[in-house]
Amino acid sequence: MTEPRRRGEPVRIVDVAALAGVSPSTVSKALNNNGMLRDSTRERVREAAEKLGFVPHAGARSLHTGRTYTVGLLSTDNAGRFSLPVVLGAENALLAGQISALLATARHDPVREQHHIRSLVSRRVDGIIVTGRTTEPREPVAAPGPVVYAFAPSTDPQDASVVPDDADGMHQVVEHLRSLGHRRLAFVGGRGDHRASHVRHEAAAAAAEARAMTLAGEPRFGEWSERWGRHAVDMLVGDGLLGPDAADPVDGIVFASDQLARGGADRLRERGLRVPEDVAVTGYDDWQVMSLASRPPLTTVDMRLETLGQRAAELLLAALAGEPFHGTELIRPRLVARDSTLGTS
Amino acid sequence: MTEPRRRGEPVRIVDVAALAGVSPSTVSKALNNNGMLRDSTRERVREAAEKLGFVPHAGARSLHTGRTYTVGLLSTDNAGRFSLPVVLGAENALLAGQISALLATARHDPVREQHHIRSLVSRRVDGIIVTGRTTEPREPVAAPGPVVYAFAPSTDPQDASVVPDDADGMHQVVEHLRSLGHRRLAFVGGRGDHRASHVRHEAAAAAAEARAMTLAGEPRFGEWSERWGRHAVDMLVGDGLLGPDAADPVDGIVFASDQLARGGADRLRERGLRVPEDVAVTGYDDWQVMSLASRPPLTTVDMRLETLGQRAAELLLAALAGEPFHGTELIRPRLVARDSTLGTS
Repeated sequence: MTEPRRRGEPVRIVDVAALAGVSPSTVSKALNNNGMLRDSTRERVREAAEKLGFVPHAGARSLHTGRTYTVGLLSTDNAGRFSLPVVLGAENALLAGQISALLATARHDPVREQHHIRSLVSRRVDGIIVTGRTTEPREPVAAPGPVVYAFAPSTDPQDASVVPDDADGMHQVVEHLRSLGHRRLAFVGGRGDHRASHVRHEAAAAAAEARAMTLAGEPRFGEWSERWGRHAVDMLVGDGLLGPDAADPVDGIVFASDQLARGGADRLRERGLRVPEDVAVTGYDDWQVMSLASRPPLTTVDMRLETLGQRAAELLLAALAGEPFHGTELIRPRLVARDSTLGTS
Repeated sequence: MTEPRRRGEPVRIVDVAALAGVSPSTVSKALNNNGMLRDSTRERVREAAEKLGFVPHAGARSLHTGRTYTVGLLSTDNAGRFSLPVVLGAENALLAGQISALLATARHDPVREQHHIRSLVSRRVDGIIVTGRTTEPREPVAAPGPVVYAFAPSTDPQDASVVPDDADGMHQVVEHLRSLGHRRLAFVGGRGDHRASHVRHEAAAAAAEARAMTLAGEPRFGEWSERWGRHAVDMLVGDGLLGPDAADPVDGIVFASDQLARGGADRLRERGLRVPEDVAVTGYDDWQVMSLASRPPLTTVDMRLETLGQRAAELLLAALAGEPFHGTELIRPRLVARDSTLGTS
């Protein structure tokens, strides 16, 4: 296979025909398994194609169907933290359908995004999958052909969007804490202007109430950082909800992300509070560089982002097959239980 | 622009012609700025194209040149930690050349990689950029057209590879420590079977020797984790190179990654050793979720991976223009000085 690379030119059907001593049309019949040919001829052509490393032109398929079998993957996330697994999941599903993914990363730049969309349209992509870096709803993309929104939903409810079911994730967290005997929780969110902070808080509050558990004090919102997680723990102590002087301390802290939970766990340890013996801690995301590195490792929620991306690709393929989906599909996350709630048994 | 998306069909040149009341060939002339046309006609066509959101077919360009103006981005990294910035940098440079990037992630699966390469070849990509998750040299990719290797070089020295200059990075680290008055260092590497661990150790040793500084004790290799960074600090104390009982303690620890350095800084603090007053700490990568979250923030080395990816794309574009590069190009990294060596002034 090295030779054609050095030649710097793709092997052509005529090369195969010459080596096999047949006509190009015979090569085509042999490789496409049609026409009337002797098995020996078919075999000879296959061997010649194999020997030369001949790869049929994907364009041929397009000529029959009028499709390009390419899909645009438009991402606004330059960190890749959330959109990369979504992109990988989508690419995986597209690959199975023999569809190639054209990558387009806009990095929060609307001008760049427009440029990308024009470029994708000019390439006549069969459709576009749009991913975002947060779950904030975003403006629809104007393009011919179907568009599916993954992780960050479209503001147009008629569009096809696939998002993680944060409410369900938080219910799983609270139910897990309840099953371990915890009754009095505190909630620490990330940025106050982010949907994820509020959806997760409201779900935690509803789940706690439904189980006759208490969500003590006000929810705390700050930033998505370990530092804020540490600071929030200091505030909980200051408010008399944690520590030796606390009259009625909480027995669990629900953090809205793994970064927050890791910072919180560090500060609790520094204050001589044991996790989970004195207070249980939960995170969100199962970002393993955080959740596994945390001491102790974090009980958290895996949003199953690859599955989410895969599902977005499946909805796009369905739309291309004439069965478009309208609305928002929720992907059920998975609770991952670790020592920050279970303790080291 | 929303209407065509709803229609689910791209706007055609005949639609523009109809709206402008001219022939399709006139539309083509007007939008391509050729042929003899009245300015008023040209203007009318442009308005019609704008109104309908008409996007010319990129394929037209291919017909003239025989190129597809697509490049394959083959990545073996499913974590994306290192290859994502490389991919973004490459995509950025390709975008400037109006070239689209076909994403192909192989995830350490040779069969999947072969499948991807066949798919890229069948799409007649103009060339391929191959990225890896480590700097370990990799087998060349067999494909027609130019291939450039980014981050993970090809084992074939005749191929075009672009890699970070780790040796230069370590020299910058050691020179930085020298300039701050440090003289006696310890080195902590990651996986012992990884090239990055040894290249960085050898460079640190050479740089120290050249400056009449000491690299005390044996280099320690383990894994690329915070846990190993913490454990290595305990070993340094056990070996009498750190801590109150150390006869001749080191005044700096050079870690081969930010994860190692962060774990080390945590353990030093837990042992009551001040960073950098008692011992300075340096990392590598400037992986900000580590380097900035570390207490104190880490002095580290930015490998400039986006620049590396951009450079790989430039080399590919040069090869497509008939000027192929053979050999390995080194990208000079950048030292980022923070409190783990400077202290809080």
